[in-house]
Amino acid sequence: MQYETDIEPLNLGGGSPDYSGLSVIEGGGATSASGFRASGVHAGFRKDPGRLDLALLVADEPAACAATFTQNVFCAAPVTVSREHLDGVSYGTARALVVNSGTANAATGSVGIQSAHRTAEIVSEAVGCPATEVMIASTGVIGQQLDMSIFETGVPQAFAALSENGGADAARAIMTTDTRPKECAVSFSGDAIGYPGCIFTIGGMAKGAGMIMPNMATMISAITTDAPVAPDMLHAALTDAVATSFNKITVDSDTSTNDCCFLFASGAAAPDAVPFEAGSPALEQFQHALHAVCDTLARGMAADGEGATRLITVRVAGAATDAQADMAARAIANSPLVKTAIFGHDANWGRIAGAAGRSGAQFCQEDVSIDIMGMPVLRAGLPVPFSEEEALRRFERPEIDIDVDLGAGTARTVMWTCDFSHEYVTINGDYRT
Amino acid sequence: MQYETDIEPLNLGGGSPDYSGLSVIEGGGATSASGFRASGVHAGFRKDPGRLDLALLVADEPAACAATFTQNVFCAAPVTVSREHLDGVSYGTARALVVNSGTANAATGSVGIQSAHRTAEIVSEAVGCPATEVMIASTGVIGQQLDMSIFETGVPQAFAALSENGGADAARAIMTTDTRPKECAVSFSGDAIGYPGCIFTIGGMAKGAGMIMPNMATMISAITTDAPVAPDMLHAALTDAVATSFNKITVDSDTSTNDCCFLFASGAAAPDAVPFEAGSPALEQFQHALHAVCDTLARGMAADGEGATRLITVRVAGAATDAQADMAARAIANSPLVKTAIFGHDANWGRIAGAAGRSGAQFCQEDVSIDIMGMPVLRAGLPVPFSEEEALRRFERPEIDIDVDLGAGTARTVMWTCDFSHEYVTINGDYRT
Repeated sequence: MQYETDIEPLNLGGGSPDYSGLSVIEGGGATSASGFRASGVHAGFRKDPGRLDLALLVADEPAACAATFTQNVFCAAPVTVSREHLDGVSYGTARALVVNSGTANAATGSVGIQSAHRTAEIVSEAVGCPATEVMIASTGVIGQQLDMSIFETGVPQAFAALSENGGADAARAIMTTDTRPKECAVSFSGDAIGYPGCIFTIGGMAKGAGMIMPNMATMISAITTDAPVAPDMLHAALTDAVATSFNKITVDSDTSTNDCCFLFASGAAAPDAVPFEAGSPALEQFQHALHAVCDTLARGMAADGEGATRLITVRVAGAATDAQADMAARAIANSPLVKTAIFGHDANWGRIAGAAGRSGAQFCQEDVSIDIMGMPVLRAGLPVPFSEEEALRRFERPEIDIDVDLGAGTARTVMWTCDFSHEYVTINGDYRT
Repeated sequence: MQYETDIEPLNLGGGSPDYSGLSVIEGGGATSASGFRASGVHAGFRKDPGRLDLALLVADEPAACAATFTQNVFCAAPVTVSREHLDGVSYGTARALVVNSGTANAATGSVGIQSAHRTAEIVSEAVGCPATEVMIASTGVIGQQLDMSIFETGVPQAFAALSENGGADAARAIMTTDTRPKECAVSFSGDAIGYPGCIFTIGGMAKGAGMIMPNMATMISAITTDAPVAPDMLHAALTDAVATSFNKITVDSDTSTNDCCFLFASGAAAPDAVPFEAGSPALEQFQHALHAVCDTLARGMAADGEGATRLITVRVAGAATDAQADMAARAIANSPLVKTAIFGHDANWGRIAGAAGRSGAQFCQEDVSIDIMGMPVLRAGLPVPFSEEEALRRFERPEIDIDVDLGAGTARTVMWTCDFSHEYVTINGDYRT
């Protein structure tokens, strides 16, 4: 077999977080921004006493807050109650977020709603704020009622443990089948954007390993910033960032009942300054930094998908419309055949082509080009011979790139997913029993 | 835990082939109907000399023919050529179908199209008919060119082997990762439908184990009948039967590049009679029998999905529209979380609820009921305690029923799928290499 080495890779680009103009804070997370404290404790939702299962995040003062929630009809009680608090009562202001792992409080009816309300009350008593300024989230098994006595004792314990360095414990406490916490923080200077002498920080945490194909939110993520941003701007910024980060990952095509993403802004980095204004360079830089944080957390979530051995970045270009780019990328990223092939270190472009072909995106097969890990494998709809040895070498990388040019337009997108391993079947065949 | 044994199961019904008024022909298949001969031989597409890899089905006289094909943009060359022959030239008449396994002739460009045309010519020379009366299908690895010398020697060999009992060999020759052939045949009397003394037969074969979520056709299926049915009626009957059989199964949500379903009618059971007329009791009975055959083959395909240990029937009722019933059933049937749970013998209704909730179907979670294997597990959106022991007992059955009532309307549907096992990952992680 001859290798046509003169064929240029597609090099579609994109898919890595863009940290340009930002300082990445090593080990940073949900408490990197000023004005926030957090903790993670073992309250008793899980049997293993060594496992943290209750996270508390508290703003020193009432903070601006925005959130996106799952679109699943079977949405969990904490989603309903948090949405009610934020949209209906506190109008974008919040003081605290409490997250338990182990029990999802989903499909729990009116008892579950009462439990969610009571959770907010317990936190409000500890923190000293209205219950409507408390956001709540739960993750774990569906259909079990929460044991409220665990909150009664656990929340005061978590409150006592609050610390300006507590982000790492909080990130561990929200984990379920995650194998590692997902945290990230960046900062940027206010000098060139109208806030001389100020350093603004955005940091956050996320969890999610199964039932992951977020639609309007991720499994659970909490992001904080000390930049001064009003609720409406915060909401717009979050919606925008979520669309190209959390909403572009999939582990197993199943959108959770509990997805939510919270963004809190304390303004503590510039306490007396006017909030970032619409269209200002400051808001633009904030948006850029928020994208970097969301992209990093989302990629981390895909890379830590249940049973994952590889992070897969799917870039689709040349689509007729944005929607069609998304359809093609999503079909490829969700294809069990593509995902098992990557697990088996098989550069099986036929399955990628097949998935794009059935996605609903419109194109001509004669116009399609595909690269796997930077190696051209398809041009003009025809196979390009490639070195299997070189492919096996590149499969050793922890990140696998799939680039597809549909040749039908100029729209493009990036999605992240992971491979599909025996371990996924083991985890999900044994999960509840 | 108490078990509320007074709760009635949903008993949605449906999902089993309806053989009422039909005689099932034990061991029947593609040559059960009069006027057809078939064979399956080892031509050399596969290395194992014991494995059949070339199937030939020939009608004694030109037969009426209808077909449905994949909607995948990356459709294979044999799909393009068969469609061209049937729709563009022969106008619903065909003499022969040739199927090779091992190589899909997909993503093979103009060379692949030439190969498909040449295949039809080779068959036409053996059979003695126009090349445009030859239907062709291929299944196997995508992106490899066919070795035409194998057809040159294999087709005469297959022609010599043609037999009125050759359906079983043909059904074996089209298998890829299938573990068993899928065949079925039924007959019905013409006495009460205007064809006294006639016995009409419909039988067929199918293959398909991976890359299976047919959209307008199945992987590969060939059905024959000796009933006198004109091409336009045949097409309408096939489209209708495919919609509720092959188009309602999914193994892995991936629609193949090579899906096709052919239906040939020889009329040999009533050679001098007028063809079945639109709206006649005869056509109605024919349609009924065709549904039974398609349902049987489709169920067989789902039950033999790659790595499958169980056939899963998903019945959704109470949807607002037919489209929403399909969305909910498809989301459940494609959910890796639901499928791995069944593999793990876990009656995890939370994953079923979650999949329905994210499907796009509209309903209120408070109105939903779910049964697993006839055991009520959810009523009015709330869990019903059930006996785990009884559930484990019922998981020993080869067929698992999931019944969901969305409580939002009167539309309903049935889909078939299979569980998701370690073996699926093994098969598809190792397939090409």
